[in-house]
Amino acid sequence: MNQVEFFFTPKVVAVVGASRKPGKVGYELLKNLKELFKGNLYAINPEAREILGVPCYSTLLDIPEEVDVVVISVPAERVSEVAEEAGRKGVKGLIVISGGFKETGPEGAEREKKLVEIVKKYGMRLIGPNCVGVYVPKTGMNTLFLSKERQGYPAHGFIAFASQSGAFGSAVLDWAAMKGIGISKFVSYGNKADVDEVDVLLYLRDDEDTRVITLYVEGIEKGREFFKVLREVTKYKPVIVLKSGRTEAGARAASSHTGSLAGSDAIYDSIFKQSGAVRAYSMEELFDLAIGLATQPPAAGGRVAVLTVGGGSGVMATDALSELGLSVPRLSESTVGRLRKVLLPFASPYNPVDVTGSAVDEHLVEAIEILLTSDDKIDAVMWLPYYMVPGITPELNRKFLDRVRKVFRETGRVVPIVGVATGGSYTATYAKEAESMGIPMYISPERAARVIKALVDYGRWLVKVGFFKYHIEKFCRIFSSHSM
Amino acid sequence: MNQVEFFFTPKVVAVVGASRKPGKVGYELLKNLKELFKGNLYAINPEAREILGVPCYSTLLDIPEEVDVVVISVPAERVSEVAEEAGRKGVKGLIVISGGFKETGPEGAEREKKLVEIVKKYGMRLIGPNCVGVYVPKTGMNTLFLSKERQGYPAHGFIAFASQSGAFGSAVLDWAAMKGIGISKFVSYGNKADVDEVDVLLYLRDDEDTRVITLYVEGIEKGREFFKVLREVTKYKPVIVLKSGRTEAGARAASSHTGSLAGSDAIYDSIFKQSGAVRAYSMEELFDLAIGLATQPPAAGGRVAVLTVGGGSGVMATDALSELGLSVPRLSESTVGRLRKVLLPFASPYNPVDVTGSAVDEHLVEAIEILLTSDDKIDAVMWLPYYMVPGITPELNRKFLDRVRKVFRETGRVVPIVGVATGGSYTATYAKEAESMGIPMYISPERAARVIKALVDYGRWLVKVGFFKYHIEKFCRIFSSHSM
Repeated sequence: MNQVEFFFTPKVVAVVGASRKPGKVGYELLKNLKELFKGNLYAINPEAREILGVPCYSTLLDIPEEVDVVVISVPAERVSEVAEEAGRKGVKGLIVISGGFKETGPEGAEREKKLVEIVKKYGMRLIGPNCVGVYVPKTGMNTLFLSKERQGYPAHGFIAFASQSGAFGSAVLDWAAMKGIGISKFVSYGNKADVDEVDVLLYLRDDEDTRVITLYVEGIEKGREFFKVLREVTKYKPVIVLKSGRTEAGARAASSHTGSLAGSDAIYDSIFKQSGAVRAYSMEELFDLAIGLATQPPAAGGRVAVLTVGGGSGVMATDALSELGLSVPRLSESTVGRLRKVLLPFASPYNPVDVTGSAVDEHLVEAIEILLTSDDKIDAVMWLPYYMVPGITPELNRKFLDRVRKVFRETGRVVPIVGVATGGSYTATYAKEAESMGIPMYISPERAARVIKALVDYGRWLVKVGFFKYHIEKFCRIFSSHSM
Repeated sequence: MNQVEFFFTPKVVAVVGASRKPGKVGYELLKNLKELFKGNLYAINPEAREILGVPCYSTLLDIPEEVDVVVISVPAERVSEVAEEAGRKGVKGLIVISGGFKETGPEGAEREKKLVEIVKKYGMRLIGPNCVGVYVPKTGMNTLFLSKERQGYPAHGFIAFASQSGAFGSAVLDWAAMKGIGISKFVSYGNKADVDEVDVLLYLRDDEDTRVITLYVEGIEKGREFFKVLREVTKYKPVIVLKSGRTEAGARAASSHTGSLAGSDAIYDSIFKQSGAVRAYSMEELFDLAIGLATQPPAAGGRVAVLTVGGGSGVMATDALSELGLSVPRLSESTVGRLRKVLLPFASPYNPVDVTGSAVDEHLVEAIEILLTSDDKIDAVMWLPYYMVPGITPELNRKFLDRVRKVFRETGRVVPIVGVATGGSYTATYAKEAESMGIPMYISPERAARVIKALVDYGRWLVKVGFFKYHIEKFCRIFSSHSM
């Protein structure tokens, strides 16, 4: 078992600092946990027999079974005492929500040092202090303390998210819940007195529910170790990093936020590149890339075919791809000839392949087969279906993906396909359907182009470290077992 | 009356090529128009007395009143004949939806030339051919031909949108409808045989319903005239341009899409700068900027204060602003001292001002007053309220904006305020409320930073051409009449 796995999959959890007062952190935390958690839950409160139906005891030692994780939300001065008790109880790990440690100055730093000593003495592990902790939809482990009325909790999914900032982490989960983006594991480790990015990366590498790892980082303390582990992990799963404190002013702000010394961004950038991590520059991009990298195979090179129903979007797609250093190459005469035979006379059989707004489903279906079997060495496809045009039927996604699957199977060569669906509710319905069939869809060609660029960069990294084939085979397994 | 205004506000419209067959362009177009149009509507169809309740006549000449606009959706070969008839009828303008002109080759180009000759001979104006035409929520003028089931139609609003691409234009309208973004006037002029960007810009400059003009452009033919007019229009209203065909491959794609010769993007870029237009690089950015520029005063300089409830978002905001060349300056000792007095002891009174997740409404309200009245010459504020944290109440927006209004009134100095609300449904509700009160809110600091950058760039342009004060006064009028 991984060293920190029990934090995410505990059987027995106790909350110290549980409160009977709605609005208090100790109440909301217990309420959220009670609602979701599938294991046994206890609360420590000498003045109550139960809170919210959770049985209460005076001390941890009174709990009549072994406890995996103790969640602590008492004033900072009392945390060490609770940690001692947990140690004597034989608890595996602590999640300390309470603030009032290193982030408040020398006195708090001393307090944090003492806490860590106790944790080490008993061989426990510690998430926090000054953190929001863990959220795992599958096991119901949840230490977030915002009420469900104010914050949404995302469903189970394949994206792991670790955030240095608790507030940002919570806001992102809330946003993900609204967007229907699933999460495998969430963790925010606050002051990182013990558990940090390194532990989490190693755990997530081996976590079967996690297909892609996303990180929000302000600063890395154990740089050498972090990058060594990162380099290892990226062989198996894509890791996408949103690193703030990139600019001088941003680094100053990061230092007064989490005390992180951000360091030169140029150094970070080169180290991320050398470790195979993909950088994102906003929350939306972090998840755009996560969804793309989790659902598509890596690209073997930078030659992209654009297949569009709208000419304007085709131009924008070409710009966006080119501006990222990717190529939208002219197609060979033989490919152009084959396309001409199946498309409308006024369609454009070059690249972008523009089937036009007069197209029917079959034009897209025939065109994708020609592109995937052409001699043009296409490494990735951006398709822009425009579900709204009159000739496109509700069957398009199924027909298109059936054909893709057939060609992948017959040729043995797979390439990533990333979609764009610009439009309103009708379009969004079919974009969601395509996603449920395994093809990620984005609102604009610019966002899809960033995803293709990440697939190309990650593919090049995998070739370099000899793991490209491993990922193609993994994709084929997921792909062939997929509903589509 | 502006030369092309009647296209957007006609009293009488006739449709030539109206069909009784659902799914046909001539049917859907008539159906859409019938549903929304507030004037008198006629259809030309010698075999029907009425279609969808719209009275039919055999020829335009039979219509028993004057006709402002004739919408033509007949095969290309028949368009000239209809144009002749319209000319004899004394019609003001034609919107030719039909394709089969310049975009199809030399024969079509000849046909287009002949059509223009007829239009000129009778002193008419022409939108198209090969276009989707016009959509005006206020008058119900609507020549879009996608069924309402597949495409949403946005409500009346203050953003005008002109798109060279019809499919992209339709998709954007659909998206805007879903997002709740209002449109004053939409036009897509297809081959631009007569009416083009120049006519449209001049009309929109004077259109009282339009506060900001957005353009999707692939190529500009009458460059000199366009830029002369653009330079004039931007004095009065912001113009935001999404120009595609920026890269070599993109320009090639544009040329096969609309036949536009895109030209060097460096030249376009410098001319846009010299004309005061703001460039956007994606659909989302086009409308992010439009909403910001339409609702906020221009900024007099590039010094930005960041006021946040979440430290991490403050760091990201600082990065994003700095990366765009804006400054997030250290605050003066006097400002820091004033902030320290009103904020929590562990809040950060520098810039970003981080009131922390333990903040209550009053911390944000007091902080904004201090920032707006400080000696730090703040030119713009990015605020990141985090509505979800326990101490923030549903009254925050009202209290915050009451205070902003009070300070603006008392000091006589106004600066743009741009908000960020990262989160899910609860947060989105309050973000929408803030927008209805006049403060634009974005999902991420990166998107808000782009808006502030545009307000700074536009402000500098206005100072240069002597129209800065004009805009500040206009803002104050809107602002004081506003619900907030």
